[in-house]
Amino acid sequence: MKKIILDLDTGIDDTLAIAYALGSGEAELIGITGTYGNVTVDQGVRNALAVTDLFGHPEIPVYRGVDHPLAKDTFTVSAGSAFIHGKNGIGEIDIPDSTREPESEPAVDFIIDAAKTYGKELTYVPTGAFTNIATALQRAPEIRNLLGDIVLMGGALTVPGNVNAWTEANISQDPEAADFLFRSGTRTKMIGLDVTMQTLLTRRQTQQWRDLGTPAGAFLADMTDYYITAYETTAPGLGGCGLHDPLAVAAAIDPTIVATLPINLKVELDGPTRGRTIGDYDRLGDPFKTTSVAVAVNVSRFLDDFMARVTSVAAGK
Amino acid sequence: MKKIILDLDTGIDDTLAIAYALGSGEAELIGITGTYGNVTVDQGVRNALAVTDLFGHPEIPVYRGVDHPLAKDTFTVSAGSAFIHGKNGIGEIDIPDSTREPESEPAVDFIIDAAKTYGKELTYVPTGAFTNIATALQRAPEIRNLLGDIVLMGGALTVPGNVNAWTEANISQDPEAADFLFRSGTRTKMIGLDVTMQTLLTRRQTQQWRDLGTPAGAFLADMTDYYITAYETTAPGLGGCGLHDPLAVAAAIDPTIVATLPINLKVELDGPTRGRTIGDYDRLGDPFKTTSVAVAVNVSRFLDDFMARVTSVAAGK
Repeated sequence: MKKIILDLDTGIDDTLAIAYALGSGEAELIGITGTYGNVTVDQGVRNALAVTDLFGHPEIPVYRGVDHPLAKDTFTVSAGSAFIHGKNGIGEIDIPDSTREPESEPAVDFIIDAAKTYGKELTYVPTGAFTNIATALQRAPEIRNLLGDIVLMGGALTVPGNVNAWTEANISQDPEAADFLFRSGTRTKMIGLDVTMQTLLTRRQTQQWRDLGTPAGAFLADMTDYYITAYETTAPGLGGCGLHDPLAVAAAIDPTIVATLPINLKVELDGPTRGRTIGDYDRLGDPFKTTSVAVAVNVSRFLDDFMARVTSVAAGK
Repeated sequence: MKKIILDLDTGIDDTLAIAYALGSGEAELIGITGTYGNVTVDQGVRNALAVTDLFGHPEIPVYRGVDHPLAKDTFTVSAGSAFIHGKNGIGEIDIPDSTREPESEPAVDFIIDAAKTYGKELTYVPTGAFTNIATALQRAPEIRNLLGDIVLMGGALTVPGNVNAWTEANISQDPEAADFLFRSGTRTKMIGLDVTMQTLLTRRQTQQWRDLGTPAGAFLADMTDYYITAYETTAPGLGGCGLHDPLAVAAAIDPTIVATLPINLKVELDGPTRGRTIGDYDRLGDPFKTTSVAVAVNVSRFLDDFMARVTSVAAGK
């Protein structure tokens, strides 16, 4: 069975990604590694432990990752992230802290070990800053050819960004790490705003979770409504919230849910468009492309899968 | 037979595009409309008349188009364009002026008339500023559904621009016209830097034209060598010059030479990334896409076609 590691800055759509993975019988979630972005590493790890408990899966280990970008010493949550995800990352909804602690093994070590243990069976799905995987690849370059798929949520190739017109949030957290990943020769599949802004969830769907009458259902409904409200301000007229991180999990489990464009990418690190994901002229003519960028998505099939899987977790099944 | 209008700011690769079209038995070049960009409209019209004479095709009518962008009153050739194409637009090579004059009918009227006369048989290939077609569509919106294909050279969706990191030269000349065209509902095929920077010509090929011992061959070789020299400065290490405009003609004649991504585009008109071609969020979910962006090209087949067709014109056949 496919083994999955989710590398999360556990905010709202990260929590939906956890639910999607736990509701997917085709894949085994072998661990969650914590990164930063929507929240700090500590808040994200706290959230990942708490929501896996709430979803009835206290067996999922959570690992603490690198807590700041490669080129900086610290990380602070942006006002935009706090607005969209709430200060606690899960829409200001109170859920009990887990009694568990994160694993003592650091996230980067766990990723390297898992790549060596599971090889091509392993799918790694990062949906926050890409610092953990960049650090793992720098420390243990040999895993580059061991790892199975890396299906990342981040970037925007054919549409504008969401931090500014050219930068997507996850890339913006650590452009150096993202650029290293794309140009490392490691195969990656990019699930960016190109497709995630097409997969929208509305209050009609969240109400179905609330109607279940379960704690997990109520939490998912209230948390996601917070996110939808934020979207009404940041993207008025869109008609819902983007399901960024869950779409990356869906594409990791079923690659046919997206259509992809093979291309060698870089991240612009200098100049006014710092943080833009764009084709790399230095490797434009290279017949081997290391990245596949999702450029189209089967929206109705994804939304059906999403609702079936997340609802099964919300129901406590 | 397919009827083609080339809308050119006749510089070096525009001249190669004329040769490609004249060397293509599958299509009839019914006229050249003059725009600005690499050169002024007047210089471009002068060049189009002179090179069609030199290529033995004095029957091709040349029409003078709008000589400045929609949002401005004047146009001046940039230092970059003058460096790449030479001040006279054709690599500082002297060829005799034509004894012909441009047609008295303005280019925009000719485009509207041709759309009404030929309908879907007509393929319009603009490779400079898009002011003429934008003006024609604004003046005669009914041609939107009459016209056959519009196969344009311009833009950069998945790679950086060539004016700056986000803007391609033809779009930069008149961003308002390009944005109007993309959002007008007219079907367009974009042949941008995504593919044209993959189709490179070297001095090995231009020597073949020189070896023919004909005036047209000598002109094409000397002119194109000027362009290759400029590329050695602007894109060192690329190993040749981009065949921008001829690739648009090739894709107009044989659509299978490129693979395309259907997407609804806009041009950013405000902010620091003015002039960027990018997906339009307002029409992201619209199942009908009005633009197809070429994202891959059959390089070897194109180069074979290019050399066969242009060489036949250079030989005077």
